[in-house]
Amino acid sequence: MNTADLRIDGPRLIDRLDALAAIGAIDGGGCCRLALTDDDRRGRDLVVGWMRELGLTVQVDAIGNVFGTRAGRRSGPPVMTGSHIDTVRTGGRYDGNYGVLAGLEVVQVLNNAGIVTEHPLCVAVFTDEEGARFAPDMLGSLVHAGGMPLAEALDLRAIDGARLGDELARIGYAGDLAPGTIRPRAFVELHIEQGPVLDAEGSTIGAVQDLQGISWQQLTITGQSNHAGTTPMRLRHDAGYAAAEVAHFVRGLTREIGGAMVGTVGRIELHPNLINVIAARATLTVDLRHTDETVLQQAEARLAGFLRELAEAEGVRIETRPLARFEPVLFDEGIVRRIEAVAARLGHTPKRMTSGAGHDAQMLARQCPTAMIFVPSVKGISHNPAEHTAPADLAAGADVLLHTLLDLAQDTTP
Amino acid sequence: MNTADLRIDGPRLIDRLDALAAIGAIDGGGCCRLALTDDDRRGRDLVVGWMRELGLTVQVDAIGNVFGTRAGRRSGPPVMTGSHIDTVRTGGRYDGNYGVLAGLEVVQVLNNAGIVTEHPLCVAVFTDEEGARFAPDMLGSLVHAGGMPLAEALDLRAIDGARLGDELARIGYAGDLAPGTIRPRAFVELHIEQGPVLDAEGSTIGAVQDLQGISWQQLTITGQSNHAGTTPMRLRHDAGYAAAEVAHFVRGLTREIGGAMVGTVGRIELHPNLINVIAARATLTVDLRHTDETVLQQAEARLAGFLRELAEAEGVRIETRPLARFEPVLFDEGIVRRIEAVAARLGHTPKRMTSGAGHDAQMLARQCPTAMIFVPSVKGISHNPAEHTAPADLAAGADVLLHTLLDLAQDTTP
Repeated sequence: MNTADLRIDGPRLIDRLDALAAIGAIDGGGCCRLALTDDDRRGRDLVVGWMRELGLTVQVDAIGNVFGTRAGRRSGPPVMTGSHIDTVRTGGRYDGNYGVLAGLEVVQVLNNAGIVTEHPLCVAVFTDEEGARFAPDMLGSLVHAGGMPLAEALDLRAIDGARLGDELARIGYAGDLAPGTIRPRAFVELHIEQGPVLDAEGSTIGAVQDLQGISWQQLTITGQSNHAGTTPMRLRHDAGYAAAEVAHFVRGLTREIGGAMVGTVGRIELHPNLINVIAARATLTVDLRHTDETVLQQAEARLAGFLRELAEAEGVRIETRPLARFEPVLFDEGIVRRIEAVAARLGHTPKRMTSGAGHDAQMLARQCPTAMIFVPSVKGISHNPAEHTAPADLAAGADVLLHTLLDLAQDTTP
Repeated sequence: MNTADLRIDGPRLIDRLDALAAIGAIDGGGCCRLALTDDDRRGRDLVVGWMRELGLTVQVDAIGNVFGTRAGRRSGPPVMTGSHIDTVRTGGRYDGNYGVLAGLEVVQVLNNAGIVTEHPLCVAVFTDEEGARFAPDMLGSLVHAGGMPLAEALDLRAIDGARLGDELARIGYAGDLAPGTIRPRAFVELHIEQGPVLDAEGSTIGAVQDLQGISWQQLTITGQSNHAGTTPMRLRHDAGYAAAEVAHFVRGLTREIGGAMVGTVGRIELHPNLINVIAARATLTVDLRHTDETVLQQAEARLAGFLRELAEAEGVRIETRPLARFEPVLFDEGIVRRIEAVAARLGHTPKRMTSGAGHDAQMLARQCPTAMIFVPSVKGISHNPAEHTAPADLAAGADVLLHTLLDLAQDTTP
């Protein structure tokens, strides 16, 4: 049959989003379903129930990742889509959930049309993508991709003290499948952008070609507390001023490097933090991101050089502590082009873009050709109950997913 | 008799300082005697007891200021010295106390030498100079000088909710004397510098010619919270960055204006204050001080202009709220010269200087010719248990006070 006219059912997709969002619902339309809590279990049960209704074969691995597979003509590796359904404490209803439920919607459309694809299709739900209860984030996909031994992951402790392995067993999602067993032929993740670019430009579809590398540092600046009135400027060792200079420098650095470079000082704490006392100590964080590892390293080096000069000039001590460091991820150009071609066929002008946030797809990219599809987040708001994507955009993204997966699943090259 | 060889007794002065510091003592050698607490009462009782032992006539006014007067040959207005004995929560043992107890030491030296001065001498203890429990600071001297109606002051509420008038009565220091009744002929306050200038320059005596004007503002910057990874630099409205730019500007402003100009951003709070979230809101304070009201106003205007540009450039809203504003105080040139002359006679090279902190003397300056004597604070540390002044410097300052007061009290011009 001619599959080109197939479209997903927008209202049906939104009904599933609403039903899932009702579990752990918080004021303002958001969700709180921290990983491996009772609410996470209820959410998983709902999704697994839908998978079974849709005729998928459900498998759960030892880190709690759930895989619902739809058989193809061949029995080899599946074309996989999916995301996560855990949320941050003040989460929205689209982040992660949208990618999983759009995957189920794709399956339903194929079921209704009676289509059997060449390769199996698999919809995955990865454990603890947010890292809001158990650090690090993207944990389920990390273990799936071989980036962390299972035993180490099961021993992780939650912010509430619980052991991950115990919580998995408690909610009934400690599966038998060895992580990494289902090694997909290709992986495509559909996600809300969680940034303002598509919304600001009026684009509906983003074809995500790469994912920023991340450098997180915490700086502790030690100066000398003194009276703000009686201490001449030349005799100051002002940790608060030094902290401000770091933020000033970071902005200048992003201007100078330009392009994909972003840098943020999101946290500043002064001590004693009083109007008339020169700060003795400042703690602040620097978040630097770029898609090119060489440029990211250059930015880090420039910052380090500046900190040395600043410490010297202001007579303060500056200690840096790395908090996180991820190299950039380059997605598969072939899949990005397929997404672009599909989007164009469906009447969109897709925007090539970079993911500024981390996603399960970056872990899957270690295993197989991978890329992502983004839809707009209104005003870029995410991790917030106000997170919103227009229903038409949700449907458009799911249609691009449908045809990209079909494209990949019908591929008859060996 | 020839009074030129009179010297105060350093160990006796330090014994009194130690005895007073034992009341409300805190770890590290400091004091916590918040105004009108039980510890403040015990401190007052000790000082009033000493005043009576020294033969002073003790009077307490309706705001709790204590005046111990030593009769002169004439009965008119006294030459007054004094300071305060209340402390901040983590105070040192010298701030205020030193000025009061050095005044008692002067009286004791004159008593021992059998000297009757032309004019009466008065040692004052002013209520709530620190403002740490009841705002505003310098309250007792403010009411004494007519700067706040008594009824309004009595109705002030403490940070713990107590009413000032009730607390005054409770500790037994709600006196009968109408505030301002004792209008001195001249006022000289001896105080530790609470800044690093004398210590850094190796000077022992500061002749304080003026007191900085103070401009305190609180700024609230409202931007847009967004993801630090996914939000391109050009689409940011970063309240945290804007706060840092204010601190950067303030430092530049002090460099440009130079001289006596000081400026401090001592408090910065970001919201949500997370490593990977662009701050939606920043609250910060700006403390500007200068000895010249015109220059201070110019600095305020420059800052206001910068805030307008910054709000425009970053797309943030900046609200400013004045927290305090005091015009500079110019002390009496005649008394400053007497202090310099006395210090030189005693073998010092006095340093003309500005007070960067507020003192009771600035209120008394509204009533009579006034000036201050400073002694070094080691490393400029104050409002801290580590506050320290060398015993020799304490004695030197008290000797300068002795001879300055003698000079003023023996003045026979009508």
